Amino acid sequence: MEKSEKRTECGALAPVRGLLRGAGQVMFQPSGWTGLLFLAGIFWSAWSSGRMAVAWGAVAGLAAATLTGRCLCLNREERKGEKEGMEGLWGFNGILVGCALMTFLKSTPLTWAVLFFGAAASVWVRTGLNRVMAPWRINSLTMPFVLTTWLLLSAARALNGVPAAELPQPELPAALLSSSPSVDTDFLPLAVCWLKGLSQVFLCNSWVAGLLFLIGLALCNGWSALWSAVASALSLALALLFGGEGSSVAAGLYGFSPVLTGIALGSIFYRPSWRSALWTVAGIVFTFFTQAALNVWLAPVGLPALTAPFCIATWLFLLPMLPLDKDPETDHSAWSAAHKPHLG
Amino acid sequence: MEKSEKRTECGALAPVRGLLRGAGQVMFQPSGWTGLLFLAGIFWSAWSSGRMAVAWGAVAGLAAATLTGRCLCLNREERKGEKEGMEGLWGFNGILVGCALMTFLKSTPLTWAVLFFGAAASVWVRTGLNRVMAPWRINSLTMPFVLTTWLLLSAARALNGVPAAELPQPELPAALLSSSPSVDTDFLPLAVCWLKGLSQVFLCNSWVAGLLFLIGLALCNGWSALWSAVASALSLALALLFGGEGSSVAAGLYGFSPVLTGIALGSIFYRPSWRSALWTVAGIVFTFFTQAALNVWLAPVGLPALTAPFCIATWLFLLPMLPLDKDPETDHSAWSAAHKPHLG
Amino acid sequence: MEKSEKRTECGALAPVRGLLRGAGQVMFQPSGWTGLLFLAGIFWSAWSSGRMAVAWGAVAGLAAATLTGRCLCLNREERKGEKEGMEGLWGFNGILVGCALMTFLKSTPLTWAVLFFGAAASVWVRTGLNRVMAPWRINSLTMPFVLTTWLLLSAARALNGVPAAELPQPELPAALLSSSPSVDTDFLPLAVCWLKGLSQVFLCNSWVAGLLFLIGLALCNGWSALWSAVASALSLALALLFGGEGSSVAAGLYGFSPVLTGIALGSIFYRPSWRSALWTVAGIVFTFFTQAALNVWLAPVGLPALTAPFCIATWLFLLPMLPLDKDPETDHSAWSAAHKPHLG
Repeated sequence: MEKSEKRTECGALAPVRGLLRGAGQVMFQPSGWTGLLFLAGIFWSAWSSGRMAVAWGAVAGLAAATLTGRCLCLNREERKGEKEGMEGLWGFNGILVGCALMTFLKSTPLTWAVLFFGAAASVWVRTGLNRVMAPWRINSLTMPFVLTTWLLLSAARALNGVPAAELPQPELPAALLSSSPSVDTDFLPLAVCWLKGLSQVFLCNSWVAGLLFLIGLALCNGWSALWSAVASALSLALALLFGGEGSSVAAGLYGFSPVLTGIALGSIFYRPSWRSALWTVAGIVFTFFTQAALNVWLAPVGLPALTAPFCIATWLFLLPMLPLDKDPETDHSAWSAAHKPHLG
Repeated sequence: MEKSEKRTECGALAPVRGLLRGAGQVMFQPSGWTGLLFLAGIFWSAWSSGRMAVAWGAVAGLAAATLTGRCLCLNREERKGEKEGMEGLWGFNGILVGCALMTFLKSTPLTWAVLFFGAAASVWVRTGLNRVMAPWRINSLTMPFVLTTWLLLSAARALNGVPAAELPQPELPAALLSSSPSVDTDFLPLAVCWLKGLSQVFLCNSWVAGLLFLIGLALCNGWSALWSAVASALSLALALLFGGEGSSVAAGLYGFSPVLTGIALGSIFYRPSWRSALWTVAGIVFTFFTQAALNVWLAPVGLPALTAPFCIATWLFLLPMLPLDKDPETDHSAWSAAHKPHLG
Repeated sequence: MEKSEKRTECGALAPVRGLLRGAGQVMFQPSGWTGLLFLAGIFWSAWSSGRMAVAWGAVAGLAAATLTGRCLCLNREERKGEKEGMEGLWGFNGILVGCALMTFLKSTPLTWAVLFFGAAASVWVRTGLNRVMAPWRINSLTMPFVLTTWLLLSAARALNGVPAAELPQPELPAALLSSSPSVDTDFLPLAVCWLKGLSQVFLCNSWVAGLLFLIGLALCNGWSALWSAVASALSLALALLFGGEGSSVAAGLYGFSPVLTGIALGSIFYRPSWRSALWTVAGIVFTFFTQAALNVWLAPVGLPALTAPFCIATWLFLLPMLPLDKDPETDHSAWSAAHKPHLG
């Protein structure tokens, strides 16, 4: 049914579906409905925080990246490019570039110009990085988003025409521990932190958005939803145990990268099993420490870690080629959900 | 005629030509006359700024690197090495190491020892990096110069025997925007900035040197001259539009990396065409933002960006292997001017 | 005799020998006796400085890493893994992780948990990095230790539960030169500095430990002992000539990376000869400058350089594939002592 549906609606709905899937692919879900719920979460978070520019930035970045992907592969590799576009693989870095630039920078005409350029650039940065990583059969994941956004946010510091809104102040990392952790450890506040860990994947600070993201995941892939929930809870527990900085923990900033690692290792790149579950837990712990480390490393230049901890940890847990799958020569350069999506 | 000429003057003039071509290859021109004009620009700039050590440093670096290349490939790959030496590919990193070390450090005997070691090291760093990049068919460009110079300038900060002259003070990047841009936007001052953008390729702050470099380019490759002019103008316009820091813009510090990207993408690695021209313009814009970003990233350690923005941007615009050439499997690991040089 | 011995003692002594060889492999020596002397040096240094936790951390890291290696390769590549375990190649990163974490962090239960996790992680980081570097036939050397330790020490800054003990304070690198060098240049104090350069390979600040390490090297490979002595002396001379910071020079902190480079290039990866000796000396000089440079680069985040200068320099001196060996296509991905070990 899936196949025939694709053929019949090529004319009108296919491009919209490709766009929505671009939102879904941020968490590895090639499903338009999942993407729609993700976008709903982004809009809710933007509306409730009074910064609608973030939501429009997400849409603009998604559209600009998807359009760029279509333009760049007009001549060659038409089929492969077409397929990537259908699956939303052009757009997922672009939507994140849009979210991030509008979160950290003020909304001026020049900022929007930078956003369109950055979202477009994320497409060819991805093509290039994927080519570099192909010999080891790994994928660039969301690193094109991270690199492009780091580059443009850093440039914004040196350029008066692109003023910063909420970019962290550059400082030597010694000051990070001055504020003692003061997370409310009752059940309800903890549940809010837990859902915010999910929502921060799209840079949202809203438990409602986190809930919408969780539902969106469950619509397409139950294992992904499960692992996102486990990863956010585990990283929250680690942050409390190891005494991470209080306001970061409360805003879910220790959660979003482990959530992505959990989904990637637990439900996408390895088949769910007891052994791959243990390996995924180790990956989540590793991502937690990488998040803390990158907070320190990036403090002197005042940049957020974005999803770099997820990318670094996932690569390090894919590269050893452990025999967790039936096929020891598994190719991790493209993702295919271990369980087929429930909804297209 | 070119061929027979090479054969007959092997004895006396070939080594001199190899050296001069080393200067020319900094901007991808395998021409001794171009190299001679580049050296003239360097000497003019050094003389007019009262720091002749920079010019002698350039000559020393060029000679040391070329000699090292000759020594290292005595036994094996004699022919390939000989050819690289003839084309000046051993020397172009060395001349830049010489310029940079004498620009940023005080001229003491220990500094000269460091310069000779650094220029020699740039040769084997290049051999190693080229080997690493070979699977993706890209070239290390001037990255061996950048890495070697960053390493030695950083070391100079920790070693009292190699005192700094004009090395930027380490500082947190917040202070960068304190000085408002105050570039004189009349025609003549702008033309001076534009030519200085070219001259800074060799770390010269002199419009006369920029003019000599432009003439040198035009002697060998018209497209290279055109793209260098376009790139310097475009990056100057972007710096004014986006409000880059005034004194940097006036000194041409936003121009030199885009100039190299423009030459590389527009006239060397892709055949000139409307489509490759659009791609080159995107590459120049990307290089501009990378320059601004690296200024921020390197502020805490007080290092100059050198030509790293050019290398990063050019790699990212070569790696996606866009079908801009007739041959989709183009090998970008070595450069060959799309148009043959006018003068040998 | 060696072979039959291996077979007969598989039951009881083989695991102990594998552990001890893990200590020996830090300096490329696959010998249990060498490892025993290295451990003796570590214990002496820990006891004399009143910080026994460092020695127990070394043992714990060694054991945790070796055990992790055994668990991870149970199913596949059993033989290759078994062989690596016998040769101590699982443990050498782990013992360094243990030394470093207990040197720089306070000994709390959470720190020990981090140590076990880090030592285990060094095993799969090594497997992954080796796979990445395989196409260029180089080895990850001690970089898995460096990366894992940098990551965990950085994370410790952001986490109140893992307090720092002797971690350097983050500062802008300008302050590094404030203290003038004041190394006592009489013979005996210099000899102490020279031996401390050796001892700092295991982060020990003790000339007795350095002497034990030198004897341990001589037991297994005379060339390695010779080059370690030459490298420590040469880097000490360079540090005095170039005016490195006095207390660092006195503690041997300019010596340990050159010592490893000297052993690696002079006695392991190239056959000893006059030409490879010259190349090794160049490598030692390069390592010295890299050490000074990394001190500056890491100052803003307050991290020690560890053995990163050794890894970077050794890669750069292996990658050009100079014809220093008989076989030009030498594979440097695994090390084999040019001279067979004297003791098993």
